[in-house]
Amino acid sequence: MNEQYSSQLLEKAVNEFSKLPGIGRKTAMRLVLHLLRQDDATVDAFGTSIMTLKHKVKYCHVCHNISDTETCNICANPLRDNTSVCVVESIRDVMAIEATQQYHGLYHVLGGVISPMESIGPSDLEIQSLIDRVKAGGVKEVILALSTTMEGDTTNFFIYRKLKDEPVKISVLARGVSVGDELQYTDEVTLGRSIINRTPYNGN
Amino acid sequence: MNEQYSSQLLEKAVNEFSKLPGIGRKTAMRLVLHLLRQDDATVDAFGTSIMTLKHKVKYCHVCHNISDTETCNICANPLRDNTSVCVVESIRDVMAIEATQQYHGLYHVLGGVISPMESIGPSDLEIQSLIDRVKAGGVKEVILALSTTMEGDTTNFFIYRKLKDEPVKISVLARGVSVGDELQYTDEVTLGRSIINRTPYNGN
Repeated sequence: MNEQYSSQLLEKAVNEFSKLPGIGRKTAMRLVLHLLRQDDATVDAFGTSIMTLKHKVKYCHVCHNISDTETCNICANPLRDNTSVCVVESIRDVMAIEATQQYHGLYHVLGGVISPMESIGPSDLEIQSLIDRVKAGGVKEVILALSTTMEGDTTNFFIYRKLKDEPVKISVLARGVSVGDELQYTDEVTLGRSIINRTPYNGN
Repeated sequence: MNEQYSSQLLEKAVNEFSKLPGIGRKTAMRLVLHLLRQDDATVDAFGTSIMTLKHKVKYCHVCHNISDTETCNICANPLRDNTSVCVVESIRDVMAIEATQQYHGLYHVLGGVISPMESIGPSDLEIQSLIDRVKAGGVKEVILALSTTMEGDTTNFFIYRKLKDEPVKISVLARGVSVGDELQYTDEVTLGRSIINRTPYNGN
């Protein structure tokens, strides 16, 4: 391996890039050579952006979303409905739901789902802080918006059991046929659930 | 765009990653969140590796290959045949040829090929330094190992014209059917050239 690279600095950079998920050694080489063709300032901006993020990033003390401040923009926004808390797995899910512009409440980022296979238990996630947040009062609805996988379902059920005696409405994202999907290509579990959970139709 | 990200530091890092070739915003986000889950030292090693490379990298003053020293390992190696110079487009081609272990001469990295479409002319490439290197004497063979594209062919011809009066053998990589390819799937230009340039067969 050492002999293939004519520069150890190059080899080191390629090694670092190829540690990223989904980036093999060939792609890493392509990315490094691309950066090498840019000017110094561009490369420095690239390198420092990720280090600055890592060193300075904060997590909102209320919802655990990534933030530049102690309380994130969403939690600090007085226009948002603070009686509704949407429970998600990760920051990316917050962004996906925000992009729909259909939700105006707050969030709670768990940081993952319960997964015995990956030895992630409830204590590794922000579940207790969610319970405390609900028990503190003011929250009227908890919307469980986790992945529709076994791990997501397990986490949903765990949270449900912890909250079921609290005076809070617990709901889950509607599951059914995707908008734009053809019925014949929808998997049978989804199709079955969409029949069981059919919704009243009033012409729109 | 600003509203979608709950952290400007995050947005900045995602912006930087999505400038890389072949990396879209979703992949950039995935890579940044991956790095964010690593410890500080890992992220610092990643960020500094590329900046150190950019600031400290050298190019061999003989062959223009990337190097940590003034003269690269290949040019400085007394065991290599310094009468043979293989002309390639980029550092990656040097690595590809080195990986075959079939070549024991030196290289000359042009830094690209002549491409009027991308306004890359002969003066943007290390062509003059190749001519000077040949004229300085000692080189018996120049092997043109450029891409088999129109730009590569143009560059081959340009170098050929510049060197044809020098006492040096000029050769080009053999072109033909790839090893392991089925004839029916070989394109007709390649197949045609492989018939014209058929080689004597002596049983092996």
